[in-house]
Amino acid sequence: MWRALELAARGPAHGPNPQVGAVLLDPAGRRIGEGWHAGAGTPHAEPAALADARSAGHDPRGATMVVTLEPCRHTGRTGPCTHALIAAGVARVVYALDDPSPTAGGGAGVLRSAGLEVVGGLLAEQADTIVHPWLTAVRRGRPWVTLKHATTLDGRVAAADGSSRWITSPAARRHAHRLRAQVDAIVVGTGTALRDDPALTARDENGGLSAHQPLRVVVGRRTVPAGARLRGLGGPLVEVRDHDPSAVLTSLAEHEVRHVLVEGGPTVAAAFLRAGLVDEVHAYLAAAYLGAGPAAVGDLAITSIDGALRLTVTEATIVGGDVLVVARNQEE
Amino acid sequence: MWRALELAARGPAHGPNPQVGAVLLDPAGRRIGEGWHAGAGTPHAEPAALADARSAGHDPRGATMVVTLEPCRHTGRTGPCTHALIAAGVARVVYALDDPSPTAGGGAGVLRSAGLEVVGGLLAEQADTIVHPWLTAVRRGRPWVTLKHATTLDGRVAAADGSSRWITSPAARRHAHRLRAQVDAIVVGTGTALRDDPALTARDENGGLSAHQPLRVVVGRRTVPAGARLRGLGGPLVEVRDHDPSAVLTSLAEHEVRHVLVEGGPTVAAAFLRAGLVDEVHAYLAAAYLGAGPAAVGDLAITSIDGALRLTVTEATIVGGDVLVVARNQEE
Ligand SMILES: NC(=O)c1ccc[n+]([C@@H]2O[C@H](COP(=O)([O-])OP(=O)(O)OC[C@H]3O[C@@H](n4cnc5c(N)ncnc54)[C@H](OP(=O)(O)O)[C@@H]3O)[C@@H](O)[C@H]2O)c1
Ligand SMILES: NC(=O)c1ccc[n+]([C@@H]2O[C@H](COP(=O)([O-])OP(=O)(O)OC[C@H]3O[C@@H](n4cnc5c(N)ncnc54)[C@H](OP(=O)(O)O)[C@@H]3O)[C@@H](O)[C@H]2O)c1
Repeated sequence: MWRALELAARGPAHGPNPQVGAVLLDPAGRRIGEGWHAGAGTPHAEPAALADARSAGHDPRGATMVVTLEPCRHTGRTGPCTHALIAAGVARVVYALDDPSPTAGGGAGVLRSAGLEVVGGLLAEQADTIVHPWLTAVRRGRPWVTLKHATTLDGRVAAADGSSRWITSPAARRHAHRLRAQVDAIVVGTGTALRDDPALTARDENGGLSAHQPLRVVVGRRTVPAGARLRGLGGPLVEVRDHDPSAVLTSLAEHEVRHVLVEGGPTVAAAFLRAGLVDEVHAYLAAAYLGAGPAAVGDLAITSIDGALRLTVTEATIVGGDVLVVARNQEE
Repeated sequence: MWRALELAARGPAHGPNPQVGAVLLDPAGRRIGEGWHAGAGTPHAEPAALADARSAGHDPRGATMVVTLEPCRHTGRTGPCTHALIAAGVARVVYALDDPSPTAGGGAGVLRSAGLEVVGGLLAEQADTIVHPWLTAVRRGRPWVTLKHATTLDGRVAAADGSSRWITSPAARRHAHRLRAQVDAIVVGTGTALRDDPALTARDENGGLSAHQPLRVVVGRRTVPAGARLRGLGGPLVEVRDHDPSAVLTSLAEHEVRHVLVEGGPTVAAAFLRAGLVDEVHAYLAAAYLGAGPAAVGDLAITSIDGALRLTVTEATIVGGDVLVVARNQEE
């Protein structure tokens, strides 16, 4: 299963499907095939592992499939994996996580009815850390939301004159770009779109465009002007002329968006926090002070310390001279 | 020297004198005595090591004294260490750091004139990390200043109604108390003194008062009222009716204060930052949002991002569910 988890990580973190890895073992326990899911429209991990075994001249009959997610039982862009496993004569399936999706889930039952031995839950916790946003998004029917902001130690996202380039170091910004390449959509408010003219593209270490570009979503009534960088190279631009974060997420879920990165500004960040729609925070902190300027989030209708909106820190690391704090909403 | 550094750490970090450790080696290189400085008024590390050797029946003649700081040559609360070393017939002195103080420094020269072999600079960097605040304070003639604040991820030190108890967890507050027990003085503004009625005592893990209590310094024109906790158990209360941080530090230096902890509030924190008088920041961050309330520091007369006051991060750690970011001013 460790190997299967390694293989899973080879697939893309973005997209409608999760990262899945699979290892096929012959009855003697020798590894005879490996596969992983490389994104929607490509084969799932289990058929990929079967194909890998066959191409090396191995017979999958009587073998054990070790896979990080319960095999699917539905026909989507590809056929059901349960069917492929049964047809191949696989004897045993060991998987980590139950598939929560209403259409694809329940594959274990299908396999058992066909006479296969099925064991679920192996290294489920480890597998969960890889696909947690996807899993939660599917379970809830709304995208997983990561809120990102970059502030000074006194909590400013911009100086008094509105300038915010750059608060953090180039290394921290490159780090943040890695997350962009893993999400399905980036959300900002019209305030940020008009004030900063951001591109909201995912870029690699050298500044080149990453292969995957997330949707660029601008929330608010105003229009992104012609000539804005948001209308240039990058993911498709989606203008959502609504202020309700929950409506924004619903419309994104319809676009098969599983992971949304909200990059601000303060008004939109506050709207998502107030609606209880932030699952995770990536707070980049520069060791700097501005003494004035907008805070990371606008009004939350909290008056007293007892009302503070609290999350749980999972990580604090130094990234190129800045600090990245990752925190999660435990109410998920 | 590693052993001497270990011994140095046994002494108190606060007080007018530095932490110093010493090891006495006989001509064959065997350890025959150890000593450390336990605070002003007690023997320095070298005489303590000599006494330790003698009480075990060893003769210090011809021995080597390994000590973390250049032996002093002045008569303060105790006699000069140079004298004790020469009188004891020690042949060789190896030390880490030069003593920067105008009265005590220069001991190496005195020893050389008396015919001892003297080597300085061994593990100087490691020794510096232990006594850096003291060393810098003595070099500059003003206390080392650590600014501490506890904020939410959106940079608030209090909620809209002014309530700030508690932003961080009990574990983070206990952690902060450890630093209080290491400094000579804690500074707050009258705003914080009147609003929060803090005690500003150093407490141990169990909530009991630590043996050492720093001076409690309140800066501002208003008077701390009778009955305030600042007038109760704890270090002496000093009211400085001045707004100039540099004047505050000068008057504290006269009290032999080497390390000051500025605990806010925003107005006083801003005044120290603007004056360029913050050497180090301890920023505790709770994974929480308030959306309103005062920021960690007040106005710094900075209008644009290019004017941001920048420090260098040295540490980012999770402390009981909160994050502690330590940063230093590199212009020291
Ligand atoms: N350092 C950072 O991490 C960071 C990140 C982003 C932005 N910033 C800074 O933030 C500043 C912009 O702040 P901002 O608050 O104006 O930006 P914003 O949150 O991006 O945009 C606010 C606008 O979005 C619309 N909107 C969308 N949802 C809303 C809701 N639920 N309630 C109210 N309005 C909603 C409104 O515009 P309509 O009238 O068009 O509907 C509103 O004026 C800039 O200075 C920028 O540099 C910093
Ligand atoms: N979370 C935290 O880390 C933390 C820490 C401390 C305070 N707080 C919060 O901060 C709030 C208090 O803020 P604050 O800014 O009023 O507190 P403050 O900075 O403690 O006190 C401000 C007062 O100090 C005096 N002062 C001293 N030096 C000054 C200078 N250079 N310039 C101007 N005034 C100077 C002035 O009073 P005079 O008129 O008397 O001269 C001024 O009104 C409270 O809500 C408290 O809970 C939070």
